[in-house]
Amino acid sequence: MNLKPLANRVFLEPIEEETTTKSGIVIPETVDKERPQKGRVLAVGPGRFNEKGERIPLSVREGDVVLFKKYGPDEIEIDKKKYLVADEDDILAVIEE
Amino acid sequence: MNLKPLANRVFLEPIEEETTTKSGIVIPETVDKERPQKGRVLAVGPGRFNEKGERIPLSVREGDVVLFKKYGPDEIEIDKKKYLVADEDDILAVIEE
Amino acid sequence: MNLKPLANRVFLEPIEEETTTKSGIVIPETVDKERPQKGRVLAVGPGRFNEKGERIPLSVREGDVVLFKKYGPDEIEIDKKKYLVADEDDILAVIEE
Amino acid sequence: MNLKPLANRVFLEPIEEETTTKSGIVIPETVDKERPQKGRVLAVGPGRFNEKGERIPLSVREGDVVLFKKYGPDEIEIDKKKYLVADEDDILAVIEE
Amino acid sequence: MNLKPLANRVFLEPIEEETTTKSGIVIPETVDKERPQKGRVLAVGPGRFNEKGERIPLSVREGDVVLFKKYGPDEIEIDKKKYLVADEDDILAVIEE
Amino acid sequence: MNLKPLANRVFLEPIEEETTTKSGIVIPETVDKERPQKGRVLAVGPGRFNEKGERIPLSVREGDVVLFKKYGPDEIEIDKKKYLVADEDDILAVIEE
Amino acid sequence: MNLKPLANRVFLEPIEEETTTKSGIVIPETVDKERPQKGRVLAVGPGRFNEKGERIPLSVREGDVVLFKKYGPDEIEIDKKKYLVADEDDILAVIEE
Repeated sequence: MNLKPLANRVFLEPIEEETTTKSGIVIPETVDKERPQKGRVLAVGPGRFNEKGERIPLSVREGDVVLFKKYGPDEIEIDKKKYLVADEDDILAVIEE
Repeated sequence: MNLKPLANRVFLEPIEEETTTKSGIVIPETVDKERPQKGRVLAVGPGRFNEKGERIPLSVREGDVVLFKKYGPDEIEIDKKKYLVADEDDILAVIEE
Repeated sequence: MNLKPLANRVFLEPIEEETTTKSGIVIPETVDKERPQKGRVLAVGPGRFNEKGERIPLSVREGDVVLFKKYGPDEIEIDKKKYLVADEDDILAVIEE
Repeated sequence: MNLKPLANRVFLEPIEEETTTKSGIVIPETVDKERPQKGRVLAVGPGRFNEKGERIPLSVREGDVVLFKKYGPDEIEIDKKKYLVADEDDILAVIEE
Repeated sequence: MNLKPLANRVFLEPIEEETTTKSGIVIPETVDKERPQKGRVLAVGPGRFNEKGERIPLSVREGDVVLFKKYGPDEIEIDKKKYLVADEDDILAVIEE
Repeated sequence: MNLKPLANRVFLEPIEEETTTKSGIVIPETVDKERPQKGRVLAVGPGRFNEKGERIPLSVREGDVVLFKKYGPDEIEIDKKKYLVADEDDILAVIEE
Repeated sequence: MNLKPLANRVFLEPIEEETTTKSGIVIPETVDKERPQKGRVLAVGPGRFNEKGERIPLSVREGDVVLFKKYGPDEIEIDKKKYLVADEDDILAVIEE
């Protein structure tokens, strides 16, 4: 399946934070525990039009790991898998690891 | 009947997701079960006017399969059949299958 | 009486949907049953001004049969008859029959 | 008293609808019965400024009989008489009789 | 004390309407009875800036008697005396007596 | 400590009104009694950017005594002292004494 | 970890105010006691686009100590540490010490 977002939409795959206990055991946070704020960009739109009729290109690219507003993106289910759809304004920062 | 949407309106035919059980039986979701988020574009408007008096053409075309905001489009009944009418802003992405 | 709407106003005469029973009897829907979403355009305004001081002409004309938002237009009573007054934004599509 | 409205303000004198019974007796509606939607224009402002610093002239003139939004105009009492003050946007149409 | 309003602010001294009884006795309305809608302009600001960086001059001048929106202006107390501060948009008309 | 406000922010030191009794005793109003509407400008920002990318300079200067909207400015505590931070829009007038 | 904020976003590390008792003992305020209004800038975005398609650069820089609106910035947790993410509009002033 090939997904082409419109305008300034960004499709994201949520990244679950892992919790490491003192004894070193890694406990992945469940999706239920807390809404994620971190995700990997799967696809981006071509940007909105400005008043001159030109596209404003997005500042994030496919593959970027980003932080986003906790309650900004909407959840969408495609083929039984959950994704997040954000407006570019919901993206706070790109993490370069 | 020939339908010509105005401005940035998009008429959609909802596509119901099918649910396949483990044993392979396909159970189509009923319309009542959950509002659809997927549809086929039946007709699109010529676009809104920008400040220069030019139409901003839509990014979706007749026949496109699209994902849209769950509570974005309005329902409208024409000749006893239910359709969805969306603003272009309600369309999240085009699915190319 | 001659009615000249202002700006982007559209005066509409509601069209009541008819219900045909299986035995072929036509039962017109009463106005009380449900708000109409279909109407005939009686008169249109000259359009709003854009930022350059020019009128933006309307996309519907007198005589057009149109679909509109259920709760968009206001009701107005002139000489004991009910009409609907819509902004052009309330009009979803023109039906060409 | 000479009244000069500012910007896009329109001063209106409400016109009460008359009710004619079957026997031909004319019963004027009281102001209490229902808010009027019809009025005579008493005075209009010079129009708002657009972004270029020019006045946008109003589309109604002194003496026009107009239809307006039921709850659009504000009531104002001058010398013990009630008037309505509308923004031009509250005016729906001019009636030419 | 010299007061210089900013932007599109208008300082007003409320004018209380007088009530004349049938026998000719004049009863001034108390401020408590009803909020005034009439006032004398004490001072006006130089106007807001438009997008070109120019001031939009106000349409009322010091000394004008004006009608204003009942709940538009704010009350302010200076040296134990009550004044009203309005945005120019709160002023409905100038009364020329 | 040197404080540099951003954009159109104005830092203010509230001025408490004094109450003089008939016998001449001056009773300063406590801060609790009523929110102040008068203050001295401590520092002003360089102004917001307009659409052309130029700063719109503020109309108040350090040292000005100003009247402001009662509930406009926010309170901020710096080094155990309370200040008010206003947007320029919250300032109603400059008092020249 | 390298963090690149988007648009006009500012990442902040909250600075806790210290309370010094009369006897000279310094008691740092706990985070629970009151939301901070002071912070150190960790990273800033490249600025929003204006209508001409140019970035509006931010007025704060990495390392600046700033005052901000109490309830403006959002909290975000990265690697078990709490940060604040503000829009530039939430920043009130830069403190030069």
